[in-house]
Amino acid sequence: MPTNPYVYGDDLVDVLKKKHAAGTYKSLVFYLEACEAGSVFEGLLPNDIGVYATTASNAEESSWGTYCPGEYPSPPSEYDTCLGDLYSISWMEDSDVHNLRTESLKQQYDLVKKRTAAQDSYSYGSHVMQYGSLDLNDQHLFLYIGSNPANDNTTFVEDNSLPSFSRAVNQRDADLVYFWRKYQKLAESSTEKNDARKQLLEMMGHRSHIDNSVELIGNLLFGFADGPMVLKTVRPAGEPLADDWSCLKSMVRAFESQCGSLAQYGMKHMRSFANICNAGILPEAMVKMAAQACTSIPTNPWSATHNGFSA
Amino acid sequence: MPTNPYVYGDDLVDVLKKKHAAGTYKSLVFYLEACEAGSVFEGLLPNDIGVYATTASNAEESSWGTYCPGEYPSPPSEYDTCLGDLYSISWMEDSDVHNLRTESLKQQYDLVKKRTAAQDSYSYGSHVMQYGSLDLNDQHLFLYIGSNPANDNTTFVEDNSLPSFSRAVNQRDADLVYFWRKYQKLAESSTEKNDARKQLLEMMGHRSHIDNSVELIGNLLFGFADGPMVLKTVRPAGEPLADDWSCLKSMVRAFESQCGSLAQYGMKHMRSFANICNAGILPEAMVKMAAQACTSIPTNPWSATHNGFSA
Repeated sequence: MPTNPYVYGDDLVDVLKKKHAAGTYKSLVFYLEACEAGSVFEGLLPNDIGVYATTASNAEESSWGTYCPGEYPSPPSEYDTCLGDLYSISWMEDSDVHNLRTESLKQQYDLVKKRTAAQDSYSYGSHVMQYGSLDLNDQHLFLYIGSNPANDNTTFVEDNSLPSFSRAVNQRDADLVYFWRKYQKLAESSTEKNDARKQLLEMMGHRSHIDNSVELIGNLLFGFADGPMVLKTVRPAGEPLADDWSCLKSMVRAFESQCGSLAQYGMKHMRSFANICNAGILPEAMVKMAAQACTSIPTNPWSATHNGFSA
Repeated sequence: MPTNPYVYGDDLVDVLKKKHAAGTYKSLVFYLEACEAGSVFEGLLPNDIGVYATTASNAEESSWGTYCPGEYPSPPSEYDTCLGDLYSISWMEDSDVHNLRTESLKQQYDLVKKRTAAQDSYSYGSHVMQYGSLDLNDQHLFLYIGSNPANDNTTFVEDNSLPSFSRAVNQRDADLVYFWRKYQKLAESSTEKNDARKQLLEMMGHRSHIDNSVELIGNLLFGFADGPMVLKTVRPAGEPLADDWSCLKSMVRAFESQCGSLAQYGMKHMRSFANICNAGILPEAMVKMAAQACTSIPTNPWSATHNGFSA
């Protein structure tokens, strides 16, 4: 989501339920690109409110940046950033070349899933998922996103010829790639280069602060033997991230009040906060442990809370 | 130079003078690859001791890494580091393809100078220089580095066909490229990735510490208006970096005793230390100012002095 604060899965699904109850749509298709995107719908989205959702990744893996500098195909040289996401460019490029009057949601899903899986190796790439009203699978894409008249008379080709990528950038590192390229290209000893280094140091320092704080809190709560295990536990498919989403929200607030902003990078720890709730710990205990782990909020702009809470 | 402590230009040239006086060589060819490589010989190397030197760069610019990851031509995928320097690969690849029994030092110098200059743009690339006994220019390379018998019958071609590079990495950032690639490739949330981020943070933090400390000392000594200008002054070609090299050495020691190790990256500030000497400041004043600028030596492994002084 582009703006603060970030949206929780249960709130998004509640809005969809309300809109369905109010009759504002008959059926709805939702394409979601994010790291751990599946966690937004997993165990939450009913199959009887006419919402068909597909996500860039399952509930426990990164999504992947494409058209990144230094890769092939690469962006034009004036762009120092990844221009796409493997999942999003796959469904958009598929829609560009196919006759959407005859291609079904399922046909596109299968092609996108295959292209995003990186030759089934998953050394990069992710598992594209489907949630909700899968009975919409046979419908044509035209119904939801229209079609390009130029393709209206073409016959659907199952095995499309869109190129695969030999590499991709872990979506969580995509912002660092931009600042890294910027730093590397600037002239030695220039003020701009020193500023760019400062930005990189701040971004990476924030990441270390967040990772270390969450790890330490896990150890304080569950001991050094069990802490890492409890935080990393992944529930079986079909179960939601948290049993009690209001606990999760309070838990995140409790952490941010003591340790500073999670910011976008910190979203990777949402499962840990959910698992702390699932283990029966109360937000009050988090405040105490977080205060022990974080004696002060870093002044680093990424950690500082002047932009309010992240979620 | 591969080992600590680094060698000063005056000491290197003194050794060459002594060896010449002792008659241990008749004539000698010296190829030097480094950032600001020219500063080692500029104004120091006489033209009557039979030493012909060429350098990767003049006295005031960076040298450039080649065969870097993500560039073309790039190293094999298992290498995450730049495999060459634009200057060194130019004279080595030139020597590989030419008949060294007929190619003169001057002919190779001209070709290497041209290839290293990046189409005369210098947006990357550097000025290859010659110092010392230029009367050796007409001699054949064979006399100094032998020849490949396979090339012994080929005719010398002036405009060689060796490829030029479309990009190169500022040699001072080449070590960061390695740690950056390592970081980027490692799996999200792994211990290895956290360690790699720590290494990058330490390297970049050291750079900021050194740059900021030298800048602050310049301002303390000469005021905020003149400080940056005094430190950055470049003397005309033909003049040595420092008038008094023993002052330069004491100045560097004084800095390192208060602010920690300069390490390889810190070598970029040698001109600033020389200019402080050239302005008549004594090393005792540097100790005072450095103590004000650096209240303690950072524990960062790059700044820590457990490896002794850098130079």
